[in-house]
Amino acid sequence: MSLPLTFTTLEWAGNQQPKYLQLYGHIRRAILDGQLKAGEQLPPSRTLARELKVSRTTVLQAYEHLAAEGYLSGHAGAGTFVSEQVPDQLGRPGMQAARVPASPTPPLLSKRGAAISQLPASRVPGSPNLLPFRPGVSALWDFPFPQWFRLMSRQSKSLSFESYGYGDAAGYLPLRRAIAAYLRQSRGVRCEPEQVILTSGIQQALGLACQLLLDPGDGAWMEDPGYNGAREAMRLAGVRPIPVPLDGEGLSVQAGREIAPEAKLAYVTPSHQYPLGVVMSLGRRLELLEWAARHGAWILEDDYDSEYRYSGRPLAALQGIDRNGRVVYLGTFSKVLFPALRLGYMVVPPALVEAFRRAKDYTDRGNSILEQATLAAFLEEGRLERHLRRMRLLYRERQEALVYWSEKLLGEALRVNPSDAGLHAVGWLEKHQDDRRVSETLRQREVIASPVSGYTQQFRQAPGLVLGYAPYGEGVIRGALEKIGKVLEMGE
Amino acid sequence: MSLPLTFTTLEWAGNQQPKYLQLYGHIRRAILDGQLKAGEQLPPSRTLARELKVSRTTVLQAYEHLAAEGYLSGHAGAGTFVSEQVPDQLGRPGMQAARVPASPTPPLLSKRGAAISQLPASRVPGSPNLLPFRPGVSALWDFPFPQWFRLMSRQSKSLSFESYGYGDAAGYLPLRRAIAAYLRQSRGVRCEPEQVILTSGIQQALGLACQLLLDPGDGAWMEDPGYNGAREAMRLAGVRPIPVPLDGEGLSVQAGREIAPEAKLAYVTPSHQYPLGVVMSLGRRLELLEWAARHGAWILEDDYDSEYRYSGRPLAALQGIDRNGRVVYLGTFSKVLFPALRLGYMVVPPALVEAFRRAKDYTDRGNSILEQATLAAFLEEGRLERHLRRMRLLYRERQEALVYWSEKLLGEALRVNPSDAGLHAVGWLEKHQDDRRVSETLRQREVIASPVSGYTQQFRQAPGLVLGYAPYGEGVIRGALEKIGKVLEMGE
Repeated sequence: MSLPLTFTTLEWAGNQQPKYLQLYGHIRRAILDGQLKAGEQLPPSRTLARELKVSRTTVLQAYEHLAAEGYLSGHAGAGTFVSEQVPDQLGRPGMQAARVPASPTPPLLSKRGAAISQLPASRVPGSPNLLPFRPGVSALWDFPFPQWFRLMSRQSKSLSFESYGYGDAAGYLPLRRAIAAYLRQSRGVRCEPEQVILTSGIQQALGLACQLLLDPGDGAWMEDPGYNGAREAMRLAGVRPIPVPLDGEGLSVQAGREIAPEAKLAYVTPSHQYPLGVVMSLGRRLELLEWAARHGAWILEDDYDSEYRYSGRPLAALQGIDRNGRVVYLGTFSKVLFPALRLGYMVVPPALVEAFRRAKDYTDRGNSILEQATLAAFLEEGRLERHLRRMRLLYRERQEALVYWSEKLLGEALRVNPSDAGLHAVGWLEKHQDDRRVSETLRQREVIASPVSGYTQQFRQAPGLVLGYAPYGEGVIRGALEKIGKVLEMGE
Repeated sequence: MSLPLTFTTLEWAGNQQPKYLQLYGHIRRAILDGQLKAGEQLPPSRTLARELKVSRTTVLQAYEHLAAEGYLSGHAGAGTFVSEQVPDQLGRPGMQAARVPASPTPPLLSKRGAAISQLPASRVPGSPNLLPFRPGVSALWDFPFPQWFRLMSRQSKSLSFESYGYGDAAGYLPLRRAIAAYLRQSRGVRCEPEQVILTSGIQQALGLACQLLLDPGDGAWMEDPGYNGAREAMRLAGVRPIPVPLDGEGLSVQAGREIAPEAKLAYVTPSHQYPLGVVMSLGRRLELLEWAARHGAWILEDDYDSEYRYSGRPLAALQGIDRNGRVVYLGTFSKVLFPALRLGYMVVPPALVEAFRRAKDYTDRGNSILEQATLAAFLEEGRLERHLRRMRLLYRERQEALVYWSEKLLGEALRVNPSDAGLHAVGWLEKHQDDRRVSETLRQREVIASPVSGYTQQFRQAPGLVLGYAPYGEGVIRGALEKIGKVLEMGE
């Protein structure tokens, strides 16, 4: 019997893989490609070993693996054959054609998949997190990591084995208790622990709320300018975000009623509007709650950074003055601890708890236990309050440095309004119209300053830059402002 | 000025809250309830303090907070008034009506939300994870937690601050590299690190794949009997699961073609069918791949527990013999490490990587960094392989104990087929027809034995019990089998 053609093309690939596995792969490929057909006999192991200059064991091992996987069959002495299990048509022209394209022809994605793939990239993978003035990042250098890891180590020892199995998708109960106590105390949220649903952050909470409360095609009021992540979460859920303008009191309910009276939901950041920083007035809050009650609509209250308040008393959460159970309250530990923790929460009306648990369960079965347990201890022992007190002082100083140095170095060219709260402030460009171009030029100089126009959809804002200051010391802030000064002088 | 009626109803609530906060809350409620109307004057602080028998500071503090939140206005000397910001209509009958219902009238949920809330609860919160024979749980007692936490502590010290910010939603690159190497080596998966997308487990991977690859209303072949979590993930994504029967070679492609030729996806567990344990034959694999290539359909290969193989060589993954990029491969660390870790992965065709990254980003922005980094080290240092070797021996022994003791104690009443792989085996009830009733009775005796009929939709199976044996020593297994024996003798 002459050696089938396939074996003459075999090339050994150095020492990377055992030879028997290489031979196995080669024969398998030949079978799948139709070069060796069902019923065809393979060379006896001795013959093949001699021809290929390998040991007979190598050939036998390869044959055995192929037989175990169903590619070959045979009896001792009677020869080895390509299995009849391998369909005949593998070698036919039709199958050849079907096998050819390395990446299949479009459309690969469903309609909604194509829409998702068109969403703007939120960040370039591998791009630095900590260049000034990236907004929405807390002072990672100042987080008490040693304390956090000590707590984690302690908790890891005290958790039962049971806890490492599948848990309650709504979250670890001691953590839900601690969050409820914290929110009642510091945010005026009215809630029982059972109403707290743990999430992987605000992004997931938005997605769950949109799925449960709205149907595909339903409209939702979206602050314009506003948080792009919320808009993308709506789109991901098939919900239609409808831009609604702001004024000095927050989202204009009047404008919303005119633009989209049929909307089923309003997304708002009443404590500290993102990105402009407006605090929603009491009158506007009541107006929004009344609208929701009358229309059976929902309010998603995103309270992403209200922990950082530098002057005045924080306004209690919208949720706390709602009498009709129309508010879903969203919070996150990304700003108070660190983003890569991926823990947030929502407070939902009691009647919806079961539906949210179910949705979270079938979405991802719940969050990681160890970090939930660590966070529970961090809250219970008052460590969060202590950390926040320290950070409030730090961030206030940093904001002051930003305001001081921008006035000193840039004067009228960049007017940074002090903000009562949060991790960022807006610097208004007094002489430049195109904030996107300024931002792009700055990016090349390693300054991240998001253009205000990047947060708008329909309602134009004055040109400005959103400046996150929380992670940066005065020197870094000053240096980055000097770079901004040079770019603005260039007349970009 | 006489004291407004509202103050006469004030009741102090012990020492739980400072009095000024109680007074603040009381007045706020009165304003929101319309008992105090816009423009109405409040009693002077001295008068109110005297009447309520509290210090004047208490009243002043309450007034100040209410003014800061916009409920009150006033000038020194001119008196304190309910703010004009408070809408007039708060006190009107219409608003009263709108305010009344404590929980709002149905429908609270959207159509899809209502459907989600109807999904069966996957487990009762707080129910024990570790009663025999709950399937799908690994030996939590035998996991090297001290080793894991030492690694975690080491990794926590070597990660950069940068890593605690927002990362690549597709996952931590060193982990993606380690998973790709592991899958190439041990599962014959063909992939580059870039094709690996980290998820919070298989549940989330299923959801992302359904959203990106199928549109609402599209049909998907679903193994029947099969993994209920997959069916619920499809429903959550608006996809129509279509039951397709199995035979001794796995999912019947022939039956699928007849029942639903238009299906866009097939969900399969080819390495170890869940729950029956069938290994999909080579012929059937090739037939399924050919169907997918011809129809531009997708295959979701759920390889949830193929790491545990006790005899024979594991068949390489379907993904590894696909020539057309039609397979999305899903894996999890829930079975090899522990479920509460919430880490899994998918391997997607190169052309789809960006779409999956985008979907993961807007779903939850990615997974927690610390556990990803710990897992990366666990893989890189060969610790996973060592753990798996140990567990394979342990689980094989436990399966043998299950088979041995069931035969010894129950004889023909429960015929447990040995399984080549996985964490569970099926025990067939030879004399009882209603496996659900047997399972319910056992549940009351603290034995969890899921009925095979609980995994079926349309195609009846013989009555049987799915028995997870991995976490239990021989004594526990024997004890639970004795309980099963008593229940079966009772003729339940």
